[in-house]
Amino acid sequence: MDRNKALVVFSGGQDSTTCMFHAMANYGEVELVTFDYGQRHSKEIEVAKNIAEEQGLKHHVLDMSLLGQLSPNALTEHGMNIVQAEDETVPNTFVPARNMLFLSFATALGYQTGAGTIITGVCETDFSGYPDCRDIFIKSMNVTANLAMDRNFVIETPLMWLDKKQTWALADEYGQLDYIRNRTLTCYEGVIGDGCGECPACRLRNAGLRAYLNEKE
Amino acid sequence: MDRNKALVVFSGGQDSTTCMFHAMANYGEVELVTFDYGQRHSKEIEVAKNIAEEQGLKHHVLDMSLLGQLSPNALTEHGMNIVQAEDETVPNTFVPARNMLFLSFATALGYQTGAGTIITGVCETDFSGYPDCRDIFIKSMNVTANLAMDRNFVIETPLMWLDKKQTWALADEYGQLDYIRNRTLTCYEGVIGDGCGECPACRLRNAGLRAYLNEKE
Repeated sequence: MDRNKALVVFSGGQDSTTCMFHAMANYGEVELVTFDYGQRHSKEIEVAKNIAEEQGLKHHVLDMSLLGQLSPNALTEHGMNIVQAEDETVPNTFVPARNMLFLSFATALGYQTGAGTIITGVCETDFSGYPDCRDIFIKSMNVTANLAMDRNFVIETPLMWLDKKQTWALADEYGQLDYIRNRTLTCYEGVIGDGCGECPACRLRNAGLRAYLNEKE
Repeated sequence: MDRNKALVVFSGGQDSTTCMFHAMANYGEVELVTFDYGQRHSKEIEVAKNIAEEQGLKHHVLDMSLLGQLSPNALTEHGMNIVQAEDETVPNTFVPARNMLFLSFATALGYQTGAGTIITGVCETDFSGYPDCRDIFIKSMNVTANLAMDRNFVIETPLMWLDKKQTWALADEYGQLDYIRNRTLTCYEGVIGDGCGECPACRLRNAGLRAYLNEKE
């Protein structure tokens, strides 16, 4: 297993694309893994594939449609009683522990491909009610994966303590601000680049960008 | 979430069926989850379904065929270079961290169905080169799942320190030795009950049974 070979959990959005450039700047070999689980926009997978191809990186797309089997709707269809989440801030279609499921598969893939470093763009600063974005979860997940496979993976989270403005600054540091601005997909409406400008994802992303560009001037 | 509701990771074999009876004796509500990942024998799923039905238990069968995407063969098909496992005792078709993947899904399902206790028949005594059968892995997995979902799951492993003889003794304690002997599937050849008697799984199982019955006489 090679610590200098990094596998990036990659969605084609701003955060994971920034992580990709971080990996390319810091590791000898970089591969990407995208989880296809019936995303809001199938366009997300297409965008991820295009970026991987443009950057000449090996890209693993894993079918995770089974995530749908854990949604309350799917469980209801099978005649089950769903215990409503106690925390009302978490929506009803919430599939719990998505990052745990993704990182379990990413580390297992890393085992098979010899990648000793797993990179994910999770971020505690923008933590929006998902406990598996927290640093303490990532550290515990890292230990669990290492014990599960008797290996010494390092799960790296370059964005953990950054806000959106700082993430744009990092993109700029790698000379990739324009690329990330124009080629990635964050928008809930599926509009690449600066997006629809109205959805919560666009607002957060664009506010960070404006703040960074203002500061830079 | 209800600590008194148990979800048993269930394959229809001796170990997990013993865990099922352990759960029925100790918990107010019991459900089963079986992972369908292209087992050696599709019969395994059928046996699991029959037992669940006979015992009147709610049975979740989750499609985990995506496990196949992590096997060296699948990765090779996609033109990848596979790093051979350093440990020659682990076979080449080995999908790493299977228990980590299963327990990630089982705890996420427990979150959705309100089961606070997850029961699995893993066993360190029969540890055969799979690090995710070890007690230290299970404890770490438990912490990771709890952090991932901000819940207090308990992962229980009734067989962790038992050998096969003692697992038969536990079955007998619950008055289910004959049921488990006749209705479960352990045999690599797909023969229910005492099995083909020749494969490694049958040898281990039957030696334990003989030892227990001899001692009992």
